[in-house]
Amino acid sequence: MTAGKNRLKKEMMNMEIKRENGGICAAKGFRAAGIHCGLRKNTARPDLALICSDTPCAAAGVFTRNLVKAAPVLLDMELIKSGRARAIIANSGNANACAPDDAENAARMNAAAAAALGLSKDLVLVSSTGVIGQRLNIECVEKGAAEAAAALSYDGSDAAARAIMTTDTVKKETAYRIRLGGADVRIGAIAKGSGMIHPNMGTMLCYITTDCAISPKMLDRALRSAVDISFNRVSVDGDTSTNDSCIILANGAAGNEPIDGESADYELFADVLKKLCVELARMIAADGEGASHLMTCTVRGADSEKKAENLARSVINSPLTKAAIFGRDANWGRVLCAMGYSGESFDRKKTDIYFKSENGEIKVCSAGTGMAFDEEAAEKILSAHEVVVVADLNEGGSEVTCWGCDLTYDYVKINGSYRT
Amino acid sequence: MTAGKNRLKKEMMNMEIKRENGGICAAKGFRAAGIHCGLRKNTARPDLALICSDTPCAAAGVFTRNLVKAAPVLLDMELIKSGRARAIIANSGNANACAPDDAENAARMNAAAAAALGLSKDLVLVSSTGVIGQRLNIECVEKGAAEAAAALSYDGSDAAARAIMTTDTVKKETAYRIRLGGADVRIGAIAKGSGMIHPNMGTMLCYITTDCAISPKMLDRALRSAVDISFNRVSVDGDTSTNDSCIILANGAAGNEPIDGESADYELFADVLKKLCVELARMIAADGEGASHLMTCTVRGADSEKKAENLARSVINSPLTKAAIFGRDANWGRVLCAMGYSGESFDRKKTDIYFKSENGEIKVCSAGTGMAFDEEAAEKILSAHEVVVVADLNEGGSEVTCWGCDLTYDYVKINGSYRT
Repeated sequence: MTAGKNRLKKEMMNMEIKRENGGICAAKGFRAAGIHCGLRKNTARPDLALICSDTPCAAAGVFTRNLVKAAPVLLDMELIKSGRARAIIANSGNANACAPDDAENAARMNAAAAAALGLSKDLVLVSSTGVIGQRLNIECVEKGAAEAAAALSYDGSDAAARAIMTTDTVKKETAYRIRLGGADVRIGAIAKGSGMIHPNMGTMLCYITTDCAISPKMLDRALRSAVDISFNRVSVDGDTSTNDSCIILANGAAGNEPIDGESADYELFADVLKKLCVELARMIAADGEGASHLMTCTVRGADSEKKAENLARSVINSPLTKAAIFGRDANWGRVLCAMGYSGESFDRKKTDIYFKSENGEIKVCSAGTGMAFDEEAAEKILSAHEVVVVADLNEGGSEVTCWGCDLTYDYVKINGSYRT
Repeated sequence: MTAGKNRLKKEMMNMEIKRENGGICAAKGFRAAGIHCGLRKNTARPDLALICSDTPCAAAGVFTRNLVKAAPVLLDMELIKSGRARAIIANSGNANACAPDDAENAARMNAAAAAALGLSKDLVLVSSTGVIGQRLNIECVEKGAAEAAAALSYDGSDAAARAIMTTDTVKKETAYRIRLGGADVRIGAIAKGSGMIHPNMGTMLCYITTDCAISPKMLDRALRSAVDISFNRVSVDGDTSTNDSCIILANGAAGNEPIDGESADYELFADVLKKLCVELARMIAADGEGASHLMTCTVRGADSEKKAENLARSVINSPLTKAAIFGRDANWGRVLCAMGYSGESFDRKKTDIYFKSENGEIKVCSAGTGMAFDEEAAEKILSAHEVVVVADLNEGGSEVTCWGCDLTYDYVKINGSYRT
């Protein structure tokens, strides 16, 4: 499909996509809850989330690539193979990773939620986020599972979203409605993730629910393609934490013509899922620990998408570039330097670099060489919340965008004493 | 050779190695100078260094692997192919990389020094360190080259060492004397490098001189083997800056039996060179931008040295671990997590983790699982200047140590406004 047709299609698609309220409960037949079960000392902070569908669901999940996987991740990877699930229980405050009895406690958490919901254990997924290596207080979780089940409601998204926050400063929740297969289909999500200022800074959790009727196989395909261009382009994946998980449940309550293969309906569903995941990925990057800027890097004019992605990722992950963005310093040399050590080959002498924001755009490097530019204008551009670094290789047609954030004093402060 | 014999040999070798004064001028027949030529506004800060041998030298060099190489690096890589050089001119304050007329200005810098020293241009190496992308004020350098040549002295090491400092807070200089091939052989060096808190934070420059008589081929071999286990194990190499250079000049003035092949003399020379490079690498890591701790990571019990190195490097480069060390927080989970995303495979369930310093040693993770430990004792250990993180894979006999430093507020401060 040509770029023009593609753009036209996207515009039409965006017209068909409506914002919805309700987050994880926007889709028909999903209830959620968030309670304080006692894992956190601060009783005002919820620490246990529960999400449940009234009816059976197709399920798909993408999990951390870290060799060291948390016990709940290992359990979910087994359970999700069936392509079926109905509920998710998640705690914050403890990652239940590399901890005494971690596997046993993940199993007890699964069993407690299943019992509280009256569901078979193989339909309940489990997540944990928080400090690594400390024993999970499973008694609190078991007690809490019953409480959370009793608290389930069709407007419980807000509470659930808050219960999975760790160093997050902003609740992450969104939902959309589309017309698909003769029905109104809703898709909503909650997410957490904050330590994304550099790969593997912290756990990313994302739960997505939809009332779309879709087969497990197509749901899995849509989720993977969405994660690839969203969460995997925040500086997290490849270098993911021990607990990262992105799970989607689809209960078919919308009554649309079921999606069980490639089709226009599938494409529309996959597109809205991508839009939703990109929105959450940007929220996560913008809420990076201590972040004062959402730092976006677009590499364009590359001869391959893989190259563009690796180059953009290298810039997003460069602490020197991140610190310069924090200081509103148009230090493009660090951008080029980060591209230079990305492992990708490109012609420096053909590369142009720009800084962009709502305050304007400025070219700072032409054909790989510094050029005189208006420092005041540059600082004005860099003072916006979202700063876009654009590198144009002028060698091809591929373009990729990655998201991260700046490196600030507060990042160091937050991570200098995380356990205490 | 068995570990025992190896240790014995090292001990004997250390007995033979005597500390020397004089740094880069400790070896016979080397003069140096450091002056202010005007690249820096602050006239109290020298910004141009010159090192020169009274007689011809064998020369070897190791340079950045960054695809984007500064003009002086590209020039040196050509010149060093001859295995001959007699002088090095280096400026701070401007990297002459990705800058207007960078190649032309590197050539002019080379020509100016050659003229001032009355040497052929192909015997003069050139380095620059500082901001990327801004035009080098070559007129200052040309004027300064003559001044520096006039200022050359046999005790000019201190001035030269200061002239290459950028964000360095400590001057880096060392020298040794050994008895070799029937003569007293001296080897000395100066270095700069500070932005090493994470790969590619800044330029590392190291200049080494020796009066040892050694062939260019063996000098090159000794330098590469020394750099591999020293500077390449500070979190810099692989992700090097555009300007990193390590150069050695050997003028043979000691009158030792020339080294032109593998021999006991070669081994002794190579060992002292390693010792010298490791000492400078540790100085550079300890002086990482804003660093409050020298962070050393030793991975032992690995089934291959490559694996041990990659795991140790991953820990040294983990911002989360660095921030925890800054906060004196024994957050070993981050260590295991960083090992987990290193790309190397190992058995978490067999891995033990310890924190070590002059204040003691404490085991915090046993068989990949958290264990109760005395937090007060841990904090006391982490309060030392050098903190050693030890990970024992308990799978083999390979051990590698890498060096880095903690991540602090000052790092962000320094790099938030580097150009200004």
